Amino acid sequence: MAEQPEKTLFFERVAILGLGLIGGSLALALKSSGVAQHVVAFDLDQTQLELGLSSGVIDEWCESAADTVLEADLIVLAVPVMAVATVLAEIKPVLQSKSILTDVGSVKGYVLEAVEDVFGQVPENFVAGHPIAGSERHGVAASDEKLFNNHKVIITPLKSTNPEAVSAIETMWQCAGASVVMMDPAHHDQVLAQTSHLPHLLAYALIDTLSAQGDSLEIFEYAAGGLRDFSRIAASDPTMWRDIFRSNSDAVLSILNQYQHELSTLQALIEDGDFDQLSAVFARSKKARDHFSEVLARRETNKT
Amino acid sequence: MAEQPEKTLFFERVAILGLGLIGGSLALALKSSGVAQHVVAFDLDQTQLELGLSSGVIDEWCESAADTVLEADLIVLAVPVMAVATVLAEIKPVLQSKSILTDVGSVKGYVLEAVEDVFGQVPENFVAGHPIAGSERHGVAASDEKLFNNHKVIITPLKSTNPEAVSAIETMWQCAGASVVMMDPAHHDQVLAQTSHLPHLLAYALIDTLSAQGDSLEIFEYAAGGLRDFSRIAASDPTMWRDIFRSNSDAVLSILNQYQHELSTLQALIEDGDFDQLSAVFARSKKARDHFSEVLARRETNKT
Repeated sequence: MAEQPEKTLFFERVAILGLGLIGGSLALALKSSGVAQHVVAFDLDQTQLELGLSSGVIDEWCESAADTVLEADLIVLAVPVMAVATVLAEIKPVLQSKSILTDVGSVKGYVLEAVEDVFGQVPENFVAGHPIAGSERHGVAASDEKLFNNHKVIITPLKSTNPEAVSAIETMWQCAGASVVMMDPAHHDQVLAQTSHLPHLLAYALIDTLSAQGDSLEIFEYAAGGLRDFSRIAASDPTMWRDIFRSNSDAVLSILNQYQHELSTLQALIEDGDFDQLSAVFARSKKARDHFSEVLARRETNKT
Repeated sequence: MAEQPEKTLFFERVAILGLGLIGGSLALALKSSGVAQHVVAFDLDQTQLELGLSSGVIDEWCESAADTVLEADLIVLAVPVMAVATVLAEIKPVLQSKSILTDVGSVKGYVLEAVEDVFGQVPENFVAGHPIAGSERHGVAASDEKLFNNHKVIITPLKSTNPEAVSAIETMWQCAGASVVMMDPAHHDQVLAQTSHLPHLLAYALIDTLSAQGDSLEIFEYAAGGLRDFSRIAASDPTMWRDIFRSNSDAVLSILNQYQHELSTLQALIEDGDFDQLSAVFARSKKARDHFSEVLARRETNKT
């Protein structure tokens, strides 16, 4: 269960820049929890805006990012990480000092560099964040006010970030049902490279390797648990994942090198017929996995 | 939905050698569908036998494999693949010509070689098989009469196999709710290396790599979809998987080499900053995955 925030939080006007699954779900969550009075959005794809308005996800949409953020006390950048700099440059001329800004990008170092490029330094009211939630579905039509329920959100404030802005973004995510963790931006990018970016790369590589086999349809037909789990991961959006690898390439390459070393070690054990050592690696992995599962389950139980 | 077999099948006495999840589930399925009158089992672990008897999974257990198969019209080898030769050698002196034999091992070439080693040639009443079903749980206590429902079973008869025995095993699996596919043993082992064995190796390697990181508990805590799917796979039984890699090492090494080549290609694209090409690979994978999902879904729909 997510903790109930103690303090009250209220935004008269929330601007969502980029109206997709994440932006739309946050809009719904903030409205239904009473945190947001009026949600206004902008997106390059006008059909998303019209759909968002007609389905009640948002209250209003504007023709430009700059128009959207006028008088907003909260601005949420829910665009792809590669688009953050462009959007910020558009809103910079009209940005008011009272506005708190946050984003939802998967790579924090890259986003913070983009913010710094546009503003000279990261504004004290900019709180970088990353909800660890998603879905195979995308677009505003997939919006779900419970998307963040029992999920983690990592926020990566800097020393120079205004503590009140940090507190507001923390409370905002708690009101949306999430639990919030603070992390250094570089550490966030390393952890995500390990837990999310590398697994996606491995899954794409597996599906591509198998598709190149002559009988690939047959292969998928007999896919048991193993392949089916990988296959689901490889259904993710290619453009979004291209940008994640582009913006987090150093951390990805670091863990990828270690992974390839491990895989070559296992390959050598099979080639050399050293199956007892192979089994020892399997047992070590299973033990680690079971241990972590237990610790995390216990932690979840204690929370409720 | 599984097809209903047209012909009737009835075994007076079914011998299950190795009473775990698969053996126990098959016993339940055959009894509840009226295919088996009396199920008798043997296992090296007597607690499994006692548990199986007290819970009604089996009707009787014996002190040896040889005693178990006496007068059995169906003998199911549900032991690990590495134990097949030992069990067959034990039952060979008392084996009656009327008994049909089958197995449930994950690697067919290895099993058939073991059978040949014991008997000089594969007996005409031996029909090798492999149910593509399983669970993270194991042991007879996890037995589930619906375990094979809507799952595939691959059987790999030889040219010398008695067609009536083949037909009986095919019908037996259909009565247990499965759909049956015939395949050449070597082709089975290649397909399984690709769809099951390689994914398991990749998952074990990932969990082992991540566990070696300093902050591994933290890593698992932020595990989103990507890592969670891998982590589930790596919870599988290490000894069973050691034996699968041992008995199917050639097919595994073949597809593993291709996978490593693919992964190195993706690594080079990231190192060289060629993210458009990376995205093209992702898109190709996603398209393949989506295509196969659609074809298979359509096929499922047509069946019902």
